[in-house]
Amino acid sequence: MIDLYSASTPNGFKVSIALEEMGLKYKLIVVDFEKKEQLSPEFLAISPNGRIPAIHDKESNLSVFESGAILIHLAEKTGLFLPQVSASRAKVIEWLMFQMANVGPMMGQAGVFSRYFEPKLDDAIARYRNESRRIYGVLDKRLASEEYLAGEYSIADMATYPWLYFADWCGVPCNDFKNLIRWMGTVSSRPAVERGMNIPANVSDEERLRRAKSITTK
Amino acid sequence: MIDLYSASTPNGFKVSIALEEMGLKYKLIVVDFEKKEQLSPEFLAISPNGRIPAIHDKESNLSVFESGAILIHLAEKTGLFLPQVSASRAKVIEWLMFQMANVGPMMGQAGVFSRYFEPKLDDAIARYRNESRRIYGVLDKRLASEEYLAGEYSIADMATYPWLYFADWCGVPCNDFKNLIRWMGTVSSRPAVERGMNIPANVSDEERLRRAKSITTK
Repeated sequence: MIDLYSASTPNGFKVSIALEEMGLKYKLIVVDFEKKEQLSPEFLAISPNGRIPAIHDKESNLSVFESGAILIHLAEKTGLFLPQVSASRAKVIEWLMFQMANVGPMMGQAGVFSRYFEPKLDDAIARYRNESRRIYGVLDKRLASEEYLAGEYSIADMATYPWLYFADWCGVPCNDFKNLIRWMGTVSSRPAVERGMNIPANVSDEERLRRAKSITTK
Repeated sequence: MIDLYSASTPNGFKVSIALEEMGLKYKLIVVDFEKKEQLSPEFLAISPNGRIPAIHDKESNLSVFESGAILIHLAEKTGLFLPQVSASRAKVIEWLMFQMANVGPMMGQAGVFSRYFEPKLDDAIARYRNESRRIYGVLDKRLASEEYLAGEYSIADMATYPWLYFADWCGVPCNDFKNLIRWMGTVSSRPAVERGMNIPANVSDEERLRRAKSITTK
C-alpha cells in the first residue's frame, strides 16, 4: 500500500495517473493548502520542499518527494512504463527531465504572472508566454514523428499531459499545435488517465483551478 | 568514447564533473551561442530543445539531452554515484529532481531578472530572490543532518553544486547558509569537480559569466 499526498494540481495528477496506470493500491491523503498543511512538520518530514505530491511506500517504508522521482520509483517498482534497455530508457528519462525542468517551471511562471501576480507585469507575462510556446513547439515537433514522447507510452507522457491540460489556465493555449493536440486526445482517452485526473475525486473545474492557483502562489 | 556538447554554464559543468568523476573518456565540443550553433539542425537532432549539455555516446550510438537525464545515463552506465538499492536510489533521484525542477529554474530566473532583463522589474527580481533563498533553506536544512544531499556523494551533488557556484552571479548570495557553505567547500575540494568546473578549459571568470548570461538569455 502507498500513501499518496496530493491535491488537484498538474504535479499531483502525474502521480495519480501513474498509480492508476500501474494498478497499485494507494490511499489518498489530500493536502489542504488553505490550512497550510504542506508546511506542517509531519508533511515536511516526507516532503522537505513543502510541495505535493509525495508518497510513503509502506512496503519498503520509503518516502519520496518530487513528482519526477516518484514516477521513476513507481516505474522501477513495477517494471512498467520505463524500459530497462539503455536506449529507450534514456529517451523516457530525457523527456521526463524536459518536463520537470522546462514544461512545468515555464508554464507555471506563465500562470503566475498572467493570472494573479500583482502588479501586472506585461513584460514578464510576454516572456513566459513566449517561452511556453517555444516549449510547445519542441513537444509538437517531437510528436510529429513519434506517437508518444519517448516512442512508446511512458512516464514521460504521464508527467507532461497534466501540464498541457492546464495550458489555457496558464494563459498560453496550445490549440494551434496539431501534433500536441492529437497526442493529448490519445492520452486523455486512456481510462487510467481519466481516473487519475479526477483524484482527488469529485472536484469541479472551478475548485480544481482554485487549488492549482493556491499551489503555484507559494 | 563520448562526445560532450557543452559550454561554460551551470548545466554544462554538471556533466563535465560527472565525466571526470566517473573516469570516462570524452571529447569536448564547445557549442558557441554567439554563432547560434545550438540552433543548427545538426545540434537539434541531438538536443531537440536547443540547449547544452548533450552527449553522444558512441559505444551505444545513443544521444541524450537534458543534464539530469545525462547524469542518470552515465551513472547507470558506470554503476557509480547512483545506488541500485531502492531506498538510497530514491534519495539520489529526488534531490536530483529537486535541482532540475527548482534550484536551476528559480536561480536561473533570478539571474535573468536581476542581471539583464529589460525593463528592470523589481517585483519579479524580488519574487525570484525570495524563492531562491527559500530553496537555499531547503538545501541547508537537509545538509544540517547529511554530509551530502542524498547521504553519500552522488549525481545529486554534481547537479546542484554548479548552480550554487553561480549564486552571486544570480544576484542571490548564499553566504549565510552555513551548512550549504560547508557542503560547497567539501564538494569543491574534489579534484574531479575542480577539473569539471574548468571544462571548457582556460575560461576566465568574466568569459564564463558572459557565456552563462548568453545561455540563460534565450
